Amino acid sequence: MRIVHFDKDGVLGIAADGGSGWHGLAERENGFPGTLPDLITQGADLLRAGRDLLSMHAIDLDAVRILPPVPKPPKILCVGLNYDDHLAESGLKKPVYPEIFARFATSLIAHGEPIRMPRESTMLDYEAELAVVIGRGGRRIDRDKALDHVAGYSLFNDATIRDFQLRTPQWTMGKNFDGTGAFGPWLVTPDALPPGAHGLHIEGRLNGQVMQDSSIDKLIFSVPVLIEMISVAISLEPGDVIITGTPGGVGAARKPPVYMQAGDVFEVEIEGMGVLSNPIQRESHEEASP
Amino acid sequence: MRIVHFDKDGVLGIAADGGSGWHGLAERENGFPGTLPDLITQGADLLRAGRDLLSMHAIDLDAVRILPPVPKPPKILCVGLNYDDHLAESGLKKPVYPEIFARFATSLIAHGEPIRMPRESTMLDYEAELAVVIGRGGRRIDRDKALDHVAGYSLFNDATIRDFQLRTPQWTMGKNFDGTGAFGPWLVTPDALPPGAHGLHIEGRLNGQVMQDSSIDKLIFSVPVLIEMISVAISLEPGDVIITGTPGGVGAARKPPVYMQAGDVFEVEIEGMGVLSNPIQRESHEEASP
Repeated sequence: MRIVHFDKDGVLGIAADGGSGWHGLAERENGFPGTLPDLITQGADLLRAGRDLLSMHAIDLDAVRILPPVPKPPKILCVGLNYDDHLAESGLKKPVYPEIFARFATSLIAHGEPIRMPRESTMLDYEAELAVVIGRGGRRIDRDKALDHVAGYSLFNDATIRDFQLRTPQWTMGKNFDGTGAFGPWLVTPDALPPGAHGLHIEGRLNGQVMQDSSIDKLIFSVPVLIEMISVAISLEPGDVIITGTPGGVGAARKPPVYMQAGDVFEVEIEGMGVLSNPIQRESHEEASP
Repeated sequence: MRIVHFDKDGVLGIAADGGSGWHGLAERENGFPGTLPDLITQGADLLRAGRDLLSMHAIDLDAVRILPPVPKPPKILCVGLNYDDHLAESGLKKPVYPEIFARFATSLIAHGEPIRMPRESTMLDYEAELAVVIGRGGRRIDRDKALDHVAGYSLFNDATIRDFQLRTPQWTMGKNFDGTGAFGPWLVTPDALPPGAHGLHIEGRLNGQVMQDSSIDKLIFSVPVLIEMISVAISLEPGDVIITGTPGGVGAARKPPVYMQAGDVFEVEIEGMGVLSNPIQRESHEEASP
C-alpha cells in the first residue's frame, strides 16, 4: 500500500493506492481518518486506514500538491558511509559503528519541489537514499523486533552542500541548507516490500543518466540493525525518520566532480516504491531576514 | 526578568521573577498568558508578559516541578570546540567555522531531574554551557541584528557519553542519550544581561568543586556571530536553541579522567542567570522496549 500526504487548494488530504489508482479524502470530507503524519504520530494501523481509503473517491495526484510523508519529524537521523562503494570513493575506512548526523525539518522539501542551490556555494551534490519512518517508538529495540517499529518506507535525496559539509568534521551545516532534503513522494507500508526493504534496487539519476546504482542489501548497517543501534542511546518516537545512507556514485567523488546545476532534475528510484523527482533551482534573492 | 515553565500537580504554569520573588499563574487560572514555550513560539513580548505576571500570586518554586524552558525545540544546535582552553585540552586545532552538531528533544531534562548514566558506558562527562533561545526566526540574519532574534538565555549541561561520542567522527550518538541534556532552570530575558551575555562568568561544579571556570567573552564564535553563521544555511525558528559550547576542564581531558558517578551533583552557574543543578543517577533496568 502507498499512502500520500497532500494539499489541495489549502486543504490537507490523504490518499492510498493499493495497485489500482489513488483514492482518498480531503480534511473536510466525511470519514477523513486524519492526515498521514497524524496517523503515524498516533500509531494508527496504516494498512487498515489505507484499505478504507481505497473505497473513497479517486484522487488525481497531478492536481494536488504532494507534501513530505512527515513534514516535521521529531527527529531525522541520517546515516553516513553505509555502502562499501561510497566508502571507497570517499577514501574512508569501514565504520565499526554507524556515522549518525542530523537533519532538521527546515531542510525538507516534497516530491516535485525544487532543491534550492544557495547563493553561497555551487557544490550541490545528490545522494539517493532509502528513508525509514518509525511508527512505534521505543528504546533499546532488539534487531529481531525492530521491523515491528516501522510505519513504512520512502525515498530521500540527501542533497548536500559539499564545501560546507567538509569545512568541519561535523557535517551538520552542509547537510541542512533550507530546501535540500527531498522526501517522498509517499509512504510505502511494509507489507508491500521485503523485510527492511532488503534486496531492493536503488538508483539515482541526474537528467535521466544513472549516477548511483545499487541495492539495499548492500547496506553495511541494515534497517533492523540501525534501529537497534540508534535506540541503544536514543528513544525513537512515532514519526522519526532514519535516512539510511547513499551508495557510491555521488558527484563530488567523480573525476571531474559533477554538481547539480539550476535546471537539472534529480530522480531517486527504489524498486517497487516509486520515483522521487526534484528540479534544481537557484535560491531566490529574497531569502534573507528582515 | 526570569521566566520559568513548570508543572504543578499535572497542570502547566508560568512564573516570573523581576528581583523580588516568583509570581505567576497556572494554566486554569484567569489571565494565564500561555506557557513559556507557547509564548516563545508565538513570538510574544516576553518582558511584557513577565511584567504582567509579577502582579499575580506568589509561586513557591520548591513546590512545583520545573520544566525545561522549551521542552521540544524545533532544533537544538550545539557548538563544539568554541573555547580556546577546551580546544587545547581536546588536542584539536582552532576551527575556522563553527562545529555544529545536533541534540534531539528526547535527550532533554529539566533542572533538578537526574542526568541518566546509561548501562552501556561509565564515561559520563559534564559540559557547562550557555544556551540561547531564539524568539524571532529568520534566514541570513546579519550579526548586527542577530540579538533582536533572541528570546532569552538559559543554562545547559551538555552531558556526553564520551566513548560513544568518539566512536565515529560524527558526535551525534554520544551527545543524545536519553536524559543527558540538562536545560534550565529558567529563561533570562536579554534586558537583564549584557548583549549576547558577553563577559558573564560561567562555572561548572562537580559536587561543589569548580571544574570549569571561564567567561562568555572567551567564546571563539560569539552569540551574534553564531546566529549569523548558522542562519546562512538554516532558517532559525522561534523556540530553536543554540548551545554555545563548553570551556576547558571537562572530565575526559583530566589526568586521570574524571567521570560523573551515580550520586554526584553537577551544577552549571552563569553570573546573573542562576544555577542549573542535576544529580546523577544510574539508568533503571526497565528502560527497554517491549
